[in-house]
Amino acid sequence: MKAIVFKNNQLNLIKAYPEPKPEKGEALIKVIAAGICRTDLEIIRGYMGFSGVPGHEFVGRIESCRNQDLLGRRVVGEINCGCGDCLFCRQGISRHCPNRKVLGILNKDGVMAEYLTLPETNLHLLPDGLSDTEAIFVEPLAAAYEILEQVHIKPGHRVLLLGDGKLGLLIAQVIGTTGCELTVAGKHTDRLKPFKAKGIISCHINQLNDNFYDIVIDATGSPQGIELALSRTAPQGKVVLKSTTASPAGLNLNYIVINEIELIGSRCGPFPPAISALAAKKIQVMPLISHHYNLTQGLEAFRQAGKPGAQKVIIWMEK
Amino acid sequence: MKAIVFKNNQLNLIKAYPEPKPEKGEALIKVIAAGICRTDLEIIRGYMGFSGVPGHEFVGRIESCRNQDLLGRRVVGEINCGCGDCLFCRQGISRHCPNRKVLGILNKDGVMAEYLTLPETNLHLLPDGLSDTEAIFVEPLAAAYEILEQVHIKPGHRVLLLGDGKLGLLIAQVIGTTGCELTVAGKHTDRLKPFKAKGIISCHINQLNDNFYDIVIDATGSPQGIELALSRTAPQGKVVLKSTTASPAGLNLNYIVINEIELIGSRCGPFPPAISALAAKKIQVMPLISHHYNLTQGLEAFRQAGKPGAQKVIIWMEK
Repeated sequence: MKAIVFKNNQLNLIKAYPEPKPEKGEALIKVIAAGICRTDLEIIRGYMGFSGVPGHEFVGRIESCRNQDLLGRRVVGEINCGCGDCLFCRQGISRHCPNRKVLGILNKDGVMAEYLTLPETNLHLLPDGLSDTEAIFVEPLAAAYEILEQVHIKPGHRVLLLGDGKLGLLIAQVIGTTGCELTVAGKHTDRLKPFKAKGIISCHINQLNDNFYDIVIDATGSPQGIELALSRTAPQGKVVLKSTTASPAGLNLNYIVINEIELIGSRCGPFPPAISALAAKKIQVMPLISHHYNLTQGLEAFRQAGKPGAQKVIIWMEK
Repeated sequence: MKAIVFKNNQLNLIKAYPEPKPEKGEALIKVIAAGICRTDLEIIRGYMGFSGVPGHEFVGRIESCRNQDLLGRRVVGEINCGCGDCLFCRQGISRHCPNRKVLGILNKDGVMAEYLTLPETNLHLLPDGLSDTEAIFVEPLAAAYEILEQVHIKPGHRVLLLGDGKLGLLIAQVIGTTGCELTVAGKHTDRLKPFKAKGIISCHINQLNDNFYDIVIDATGSPQGIELALSRTAPQGKVVLKSTTASPAGLNLNYIVINEIELIGSRCGPFPPAISALAAKKIQVMPLISHHYNLTQGLEAFRQAGKPGAQKVIIWMEK
């Protein structure tokens, strides 16, 4: 099969990469389309020491699986594959399994290819009203919904979101559904225009006021994000960390202790609310897309996605 | 009055320091005895830029106040004095008031003197069954109880406490009341012997096993504490930070995000459960005390308290 492969620090389009063989409990999925995520760009810079097919945002069709009723059904899939045996898998949080494989990130080929495999239990069927393009956003949108699993955001809460990148714009819409007073501070305030009707206030990150917020979400992806987040969090407030980055030198943790702040790490999230919200057209993703490519143009797609301020780039496998 | 005073980077015993004048709503309190806390030692090294009478752990007797029924009553007092007008004061969390004064720490003379003043609303009456010596521990014990306000620790939770200093030994006893599986790792494991009957497991911090814990409490007071705490916290676990210290260089915040850890800053806490627990003899403080001094020996008391591994040093004002 055709696949984009990262190996020996190089990204290549391989025309005859071996098709993945489903392990026990896994389905074989024909990939329809895939999205390039910031994590993918970090992976091809060496993050996680990954080697193989990158990518984890996809929509596909089940080509083979044990449950014959599912054949040909359109699916998205959770990306963490637990061992099934450890304490965390038995507690139902296999995404924290210490022996897990992660699609396109850790010890498992990802989605930038004609076929992939995933455990059947990782798959979610898609309703007809949800387009292939929208379906690609289920995985990052689930990561945005994870914030609502972790923090009870109420109407009247003052919430600050730092970052208006791809993930930031999804988070903005999810948090906007809570009825809180949401301010989004980023570098591309024009990108928030499509969501103005939702009452979201936006400002350039350099022009942020001095207010304190009950909840601050850092989706900047930058080491400075956490410092800015802490400096704007009210005493006994919460900071949700979505950026994976090293701590800036001299980060002042006294601020966390003296002001009794809760710092909450946030990663992957629940697929069902993301699928429902997209199917109900509560979350708009079309304004977040900048480019479409075919698989044979995959390397160009990665170059495009890596440009500063790039929006979502989608790669279509079947065309 | 006699007072220990920190001024121009020097600690002195002053024999004729002006007696404090109660402001509106404040009581004048004759100090019976005071405890030296790690924060006091940091203050006389320049922390907070404080100048004046240090100290915030005390027991005293009301000498004058508006409510005549309280005259002569034995009290302890909360150390944060809010402005009474701001958002935080109105929400009942005046200890987070941005304009607050803090007894012996910020813009308000502390307890290492014959007299102090505090707002009447900061005072807590003491039951007869509670000795003066025990009463000195109400303030730090309240800080230990704050952890139970912030985190729901259940029987069966695996909890790791890092640090067996003065605060650590109070936290160990408080957490021990929850019925959780508590391990205390520190440098002075012999100090935990008096509490062995409570079923607390202890080990030297260098011999800590590789287990993961649901909840890890950092009371080491060291910059390395948070790194050790994070490395022993299970996915979706919680870290309670009691140490006020700068972040170590290169602190890996990815760990917080990937493992979805909650980092919770914890400071002052509620006095009533601390008073009740001491009165009911649920918490033992006598094994935590190493030295007693008179006020005139105050400088020697601070020297003693500053020695590595020192236990609680108490200064008696009336004797």
